[in-house]
Amino acid sequence: MPRVPFQITAGELAGRFGLELRGGDPALAIEGVGTLSGAGPAQLSFLANPKYRAQLAQSSAGLVVMRGADAEGHAGAALVAADPYVAYARIAALFDRAPAADAGIHPSAVIDATAEVDPGAAVGPFVAIGAGSRVAAGARLGPGCVVGEDCEVGAGSVLVARVTLVRRVRLGRRVLVHPGAVLGADGFGIALDRSQGIEPYWVKVPQLGGVRVGDDCEIGANTTIDRGALEDTVLEHDVRLDNQIQIAHNVRVGAHTAMAGCVAVAGSTTIGRYCMIGGAAGIAGHLDICDRVVVTAMTLVTHSIREPGEYSSGTPLMDSRSWRRNAVRFKQLDALARRVGTPSKGEA
Amino acid sequence: MPRVPFQITAGELAGRFGLELRGGDPALAIEGVGTLSGAGPAQLSFLANPKYRAQLAQSSAGLVVMRGADAEGHAGAALVAADPYVAYARIAALFDRAPAADAGIHPSAVIDATAEVDPGAAVGPFVAIGAGSRVAAGARLGPGCVVGEDCEVGAGSVLVARVTLVRRVRLGRRVLVHPGAVLGADGFGIALDRSQGIEPYWVKVPQLGGVRVGDDCEIGANTTIDRGALEDTVLEHDVRLDNQIQIAHNVRVGAHTAMAGCVAVAGSTTIGRYCMIGGAAGIAGHLDICDRVVVTAMTLVTHSIREPGEYSSGTPLMDSRSWRRNAVRFKQLDALARRVGTPSKGEA
Amino acid sequence: MPRVPFQITAGELAGRFGLELRGGDPALAIEGVGTLSGAGPAQLSFLANPKYRAQLAQSSAGLVVMRGADAEGHAGAALVAADPYVAYARIAALFDRAPAADAGIHPSAVIDATAEVDPGAAVGPFVAIGAGSRVAAGARLGPGCVVGEDCEVGAGSVLVARVTLVRRVRLGRRVLVHPGAVLGADGFGIALDRSQGIEPYWVKVPQLGGVRVGDDCEIGANTTIDRGALEDTVLEHDVRLDNQIQIAHNVRVGAHTAMAGCVAVAGSTTIGRYCMIGGAAGIAGHLDICDRVVVTAMTLVTHSIREPGEYSSGTPLMDSRSWRRNAVRFKQLDALARRVGTPSKGEA
Repeated sequence: MPRVPFQITAGELAGRFGLELRGGDPALAIEGVGTLSGAGPAQLSFLANPKYRAQLAQSSAGLVVMRGADAEGHAGAALVAADPYVAYARIAALFDRAPAADAGIHPSAVIDATAEVDPGAAVGPFVAIGAGSRVAAGARLGPGCVVGEDCEVGAGSVLVARVTLVRRVRLGRRVLVHPGAVLGADGFGIALDRSQGIEPYWVKVPQLGGVRVGDDCEIGANTTIDRGALEDTVLEHDVRLDNQIQIAHNVRVGAHTAMAGCVAVAGSTTIGRYCMIGGAAGIAGHLDICDRVVVTAMTLVTHSIREPGEYSSGTPLMDSRSWRRNAVRFKQLDALARRVGTPSKGEA
Repeated sequence: MPRVPFQITAGELAGRFGLELRGGDPALAIEGVGTLSGAGPAQLSFLANPKYRAQLAQSSAGLVVMRGADAEGHAGAALVAADPYVAYARIAALFDRAPAADAGIHPSAVIDATAEVDPGAAVGPFVAIGAGSRVAAGARLGPGCVVGEDCEVGAGSVLVARVTLVRRVRLGRRVLVHPGAVLGADGFGIALDRSQGIEPYWVKVPQLGGVRVGDDCEIGANTTIDRGALEDTVLEHDVRLDNQIQIAHNVRVGAHTAMAGCVAVAGSTTIGRYCMIGGAAGIAGHLDICDRVVVTAMTLVTHSIREPGEYSSGTPLMDSRSWRRNAVRFKQLDALARRVGTPSKGEA
Repeated sequence: MPRVPFQITAGELAGRFGLELRGGDPALAIEGVGTLSGAGPAQLSFLANPKYRAQLAQSSAGLVVMRGADAEGHAGAALVAADPYVAYARIAALFDRAPAADAGIHPSAVIDATAEVDPGAAVGPFVAIGAGSRVAAGARLGPGCVVGEDCEVGAGSVLVARVTLVRRVRLGRRVLVHPGAVLGADGFGIALDRSQGIEPYWVKVPQLGGVRVGDDCEIGANTTIDRGALEDTVLEHDVRLDNQIQIAHNVRVGAHTAMAGCVAVAGSTTIGRYCMIGGAAGIAGHLDICDRVVVTAMTLVTHSIREPGEYSSGTPLMDSRSWRRNAVRFKQLDALARRVGTPSKGEA
């Protein structure tokens, strides 16, 4: 897969990542990575999920990262790792050889006179940078990015392409933001003015805060994170957001929390550390979610959560005919329960 | 918070907004706004939600907007307002001092010879404006906006950055559109052609209508509003849409209706005035929703609504273990109801 | 509606599309299309859905496409078609006369020296094309599109505006991609490294695959399709995706499958041919969905589906007061069922 041919031997991999090479030639040259079923003799693969163990015997991979127990009966070459997926991730990064953008500013970029761009940063074509903003060394702004006023892009952070930082957005170091993401747009604040006669109008509540994103965060394509109304919307460090997530104003997301695609978090909610939020889940506003909470896909969280654990809502998938027959009974559930007699607390 | 230091006295605020200053020095200079807990002696705050009343006593804010009843026992300076949140919103706008874009067209902008841009409009870098489109005085098109053919941007309307108006989109006056929003993309119209042999293909149904957006609407980041199939998709005036909302072709949204983030409205549905649609709610196509309907978060609306009021669907949040135990019973609900005996209409 | 006046006679339409003209003058000039209620004497309309039959008598349309049975009692001119909606779609395309972009490269475009753009392609303003990418004849890249490294845009494909192909994205022929769509962003792959002391960190799993999109696909505004982790994310031919859909890494979508807005499909799931996925539905990861599956709006699919048919989840819409009364009972459903006695398999 690498554009520039790149090779590393099995022995070098073992040495560099502190892994044990078992049953293989240390001089074997590895040129890429692949799945167990797709990798060839010059490629490395991995076995992390036990359900793929059956594929190991058929694999043509030249080298496979796996746990010691899996390596026991394995005929081929193995790199033994306590956590094969983490070890694979680190090794695979060697083969992710995107052409590095050279430092410097593309001639088409439009940069406000009061903005500061480090000479070690790379600014691509059609990038606009507004008043008072700063871009640190090693940062990379791909084509079409817009950085508004009073923003900061920390050292080594990457805005892949067409990312917008609207205003007062501060990114830490090594933050990775994918295309179409919008950080620092106005939060959704409106107040209905009933004093102006028979047709009340909405009045916009000015959004004056910013967005702060800690080191090592990743923000997915077309994800939106609004600026706070008065204080900042905050992502602590190592927060991982997938695509099309909506983070409303004044939300705070704790370090190491990960969210799958299409999650929506309403305003002023605080989410703890090491939470895992499933795809398309919704979290209502003004809630507190403690550390280490798991929310399953498409669940709606309507109250604060004080205990770590896994939470869900919704109904199971059914064929539509059965579903309709049962769903209509949901409307009678209270009547049904009353007829049967309310279960005691112990039962529920 | 203001970039340019800006001051106004408590007395001037009272006079300008028709509010009563109680217990404070009219000469007190206010330089910004903040929350009750964060504001300092030169800042103004507000108390609207009674649950924050306890914070009032501890607040260091120099001046607080509040109701008369709350001002009774308050030791500090108060601006008394019938609706403190609306009064605060109007005052805070004084401190929202974004550097105004100068009128004029950035040299990098590419404007079709048949387009008309008022000299009093501001067109930023990397903006493209297509054939026959018009931009009125006081309008502002931020960096990277694309305006296609036959579009209109009304007086004082703002496309913050990277907004796309695809084709036949007409925005009224003072419309605010946030980055990444796409108005006027083709509606989703396809017809399956079964006449072409054993493998039927989809045929695209041309989308020939436009999008009309009334005065004073706000459209959130990455929200999409498709053009109509034959007639226009319409937002009446003062409609307020949060981020990542999807409005399909030929939808009509009544004046003053507000939608929270991630709502999806399917084609040809009509929504009344003063409706409030909760986050991530879905509204099916070809429905009529009357005025003053409230839909709670993540509810799916599958039939027309004729009565104002609040509507919901879904199940409560539970720990996943309890949820699984109960959810599996949903599949037996009809059988359960039959065993118990169908409740009478009166019960349900 | 056409910018350039365009006319075609009723007789020519009948001849070109192989339809029977009944009760009308073959010389009647048709200048546009419209709804039954909106079309005038020089416009063509259609009657496909029987629920609009009542509008037919009142219609002023000069010519109406309809089934033979509907034409029986119709006083005006009819074009008789076995499938009026498909016939209308083909006819209406004649009137969709967007100004065609001229072939050639806009002077503002920035194209890598190693990229190949066919002289018959049209590349608009502010387009960036990266190393090794290829754009075929008849392709059109509208304003602000970004094409990264190693991408291909097939013959006749259109990126309307502000589309991003991040890396290793290959589009077939006649693919239509609407503004804001992002194809080829990194899939969401992270592994928690517990070996680094008391605060485990996420390690990014490199995303090295690409995205392959077959001929005749349509991809909606702000939709995201991630590149695969090792192998490609795949859309077969004639797949139709509405706006704001999220397709995660290594998903495979079968030919002729259509998805309404805001659907989310998690990683490594395979979806068959001729499936119809309703708006805002969610499909969990690592599932197999067979051909000809229909999923209703906002349904969550949590297990593989082996049988064609329609599937649903969720609860019906209710007024919130009734909903709360019933929803709270969902928490007691298992206890209720135990009290009644578990229904036998035959009952459920």
